[in-house]
Amino acid sequence: MTSTGHPVMRLGIIGLGGAAKQMLPSFTSHPHVTITAAADPRAEARAAFEKELGGRSFAQAADLCASPDVDVVYVATPHQMHRDHATQAALAGKHVIIEKPMALTLEECGDIIDVAAANNVHLVVGHTHGFNAPIMKMRAMIRAGAIGPVSMINNWTYGNFLYRPRRPEELRTQDGGGIIYNQVPHQVDIVRLLGGGMVRSVRSMVWTLDPERPTEGAHTTFLQFEDGAAASLAYSAYDYFDTDEFHEWVGELGEPRAPGRQGASRIALARISDTQAEIDLKAAGGFGGDRKLATPPQAEWNQPHFGITIVSGPDGDLRQSARGVLLYGKEGRREIPIDPPRAFPDKCGVIDEMYDAFTGVRPVIHDGAWGRATMEVCQAILRSAQESREIFLSHQVPVRD
Amino acid sequence: MTSTGHPVMRLGIIGLGGAAKQMLPSFTSHPHVTITAAADPRAEARAAFEKELGGRSFAQAADLCASPDVDVVYVATPHQMHRDHATQAALAGKHVIIEKPMALTLEECGDIIDVAAANNVHLVVGHTHGFNAPIMKMRAMIRAGAIGPVSMINNWTYGNFLYRPRRPEELRTQDGGGIIYNQVPHQVDIVRLLGGGMVRSVRSMVWTLDPERPTEGAHTTFLQFEDGAAASLAYSAYDYFDTDEFHEWVGELGEPRAPGRQGASRIALARISDTQAEIDLKAAGGFGGDRKLATPPQAEWNQPHFGITIVSGPDGDLRQSARGVLLYGKEGRREIPIDPPRAFPDKCGVIDEMYDAFTGVRPVIHDGAWGRATMEVCQAILRSAQESREIFLSHQVPVRD
Repeated sequence: MTSTGHPVMRLGIIGLGGAAKQMLPSFTSHPHVTITAAADPRAEARAAFEKELGGRSFAQAADLCASPDVDVVYVATPHQMHRDHATQAALAGKHVIIEKPMALTLEECGDIIDVAAANNVHLVVGHTHGFNAPIMKMRAMIRAGAIGPVSMINNWTYGNFLYRPRRPEELRTQDGGGIIYNQVPHQVDIVRLLGGGMVRSVRSMVWTLDPERPTEGAHTTFLQFEDGAAASLAYSAYDYFDTDEFHEWVGELGEPRAPGRQGASRIALARISDTQAEIDLKAAGGFGGDRKLATPPQAEWNQPHFGITIVSGPDGDLRQSARGVLLYGKEGRREIPIDPPRAFPDKCGVIDEMYDAFTGVRPVIHDGAWGRATMEVCQAILRSAQESREIFLSHQVPVRD
Repeated sequence: MTSTGHPVMRLGIIGLGGAAKQMLPSFTSHPHVTITAAADPRAEARAAFEKELGGRSFAQAADLCASPDVDVVYVATPHQMHRDHATQAALAGKHVIIEKPMALTLEECGDIIDVAAANNVHLVVGHTHGFNAPIMKMRAMIRAGAIGPVSMINNWTYGNFLYRPRRPEELRTQDGGGIIYNQVPHQVDIVRLLGGGMVRSVRSMVWTLDPERPTEGAHTTFLQFEDGAAASLAYSAYDYFDTDEFHEWVGELGEPRAPGRQGASRIALARISDTQAEIDLKAAGGFGGDRKLATPPQAEWNQPHFGITIVSGPDGDLRQSARGVLLYGKEGRREIPIDPPRAFPDKCGVIDEMYDAFTGVRPVIHDGAWGRATMEVCQAILRSAQESREIFLSHQVPVRD
């Protein structure tokens, strides 16, 4: 218990790479969360963690899972290890937060769900941009009848994903590389949340356009929901057009961006000498690395976003804006501001959702079944493209709200 | 022959409504076209035509078709009359321009194509926004290799179509009303032109959301091309969000718009007392009517556009801008300006294409087979939504370029 009477939730982190580093501000900004432990095979990462956060660190994930000082384990290891690390934690009775993608196959997702259920622990799959406050606000407004029953949802995201520094497996689809496992889950989480969750079928085309980055980098997809709503998704990772141009040049994390920098990531990457240099650059973004995320002044923190999201109903459209939600209704356009994020980058929704479940306030929305349903859509996108046909789904679940 | 040695092309207009009125500046801006005749059952429209343009006018379309003073007939009558008027003109040996939609069924389109072929006359189907100079420029750049082979094409158009003044049949789908026959052809013409023309299949959802305007007003659609390219289209006619917000508040015709007027069309329409008042208001936009299209000063003429169009390939993205085309390539963003239109509104592509065919310079691109293929896609969009399945096509033709 803290002095305010709120239970303390003690967190252990498995995997001290870039994902954990980016999640940290959200964790530490929660008043009742304390980070007590971390596991990573790299000694320099453990040393940096202990120095920065003062918790205990382990070379082996199993030792962290066995620790009595941990209530919740955050799994932020490379994708192919998610299943093993998540089940290990759940078997030890720890609640689990897993980074997207939940796992590499629906079977692995099912294993995690089963072990979590059998051990009666909470499971949160994220962060994705589906947790963003404006998306959750749009969902709440839809539930409150702001635009009537949802008909059309469109998300368009063009950015530079493929030209950020990568480890080699991040460019191999079979190891969870490319946009299908790393970027499309954002879009799918967003539109499933706004559309109620139950996707009926998927029709898609996917492209691998750069032989130097031989994994999927673009797709366009049609999603039909069970209730007659439908969505389109369009995504490009090729650093040409950028949808931030339509979003006041506010970046994915809510940071102000300089306009007209399209193509800069590709050019910067081309200056890196070889694969090892790129691996080193990627590692530099984790614990013990020397690359720091540039944090803008707090006064410039906008809402995080993922491209452009517009949801329509008979009585209006809703669109995420830089600072909140835009309602286009029968009386015209009106902005509903949302409190600025309490952390940068803002991934607070993940820890808040786990804390609320941990303290019994409300059940998890983005749970294992939700995460598997999102992964099912992502994999159906790839399969629809490969087989040039509509794919029908069987693991979908509704939004718990 | 004109004094410059260019043949004169003499034009007769069937149907003196709003479409003809909007087409007029493009026709009269052509140096070698002269308007010699018109047909309309309404005496006041004929009188206005004779006063304004000095040509001869007829109450019956057949009499115009029989006139020896006409080389080309422009069919701008209500959609359900297109087939009869177009075949009548072709049978009389006149070249034919038909407004979109070409006709109401593929069979009717086929009749027109057959009669035109049998009588050896040229057929142009338009205007659509597929004729716009920036779209044609993007196609030429694609052909020249600017972005490599086309992969993804996306068009998003949100506007106020359903809340402009309408005749009752324009709100009945079976009579060619609603977006499928009147707005979607713009999107389909654009993406077919950019994607090469050969659509393999269509998956779509379509909505009728306002009981007061009981015809289709929104859709989202996935198009697969034969060669592996694909497109997404999203459209809303409900006057909520407006894509001109992403296009520097330049309107469909290239006119500057005041920002923040979303919803104004619905509010204005609500002030109209009844159906007859709305019919009168619609008629006021034609010949003999007192509603004039507001023409901005020539210095403010931007390129016409239809929402946002982005086409992608391995080497870059192209996007239509207010004044030309934006190329997002490996070196960043660059704008390719296009000469401002010579008329407002700019539908010059239609008359230029007919004139070039008439004088043997080049064959028609947007011919009958092209128009039928576009109509096939539009009807497949409706059918895919009705039957919740992918629809395969059989009347597609490639771009003739």
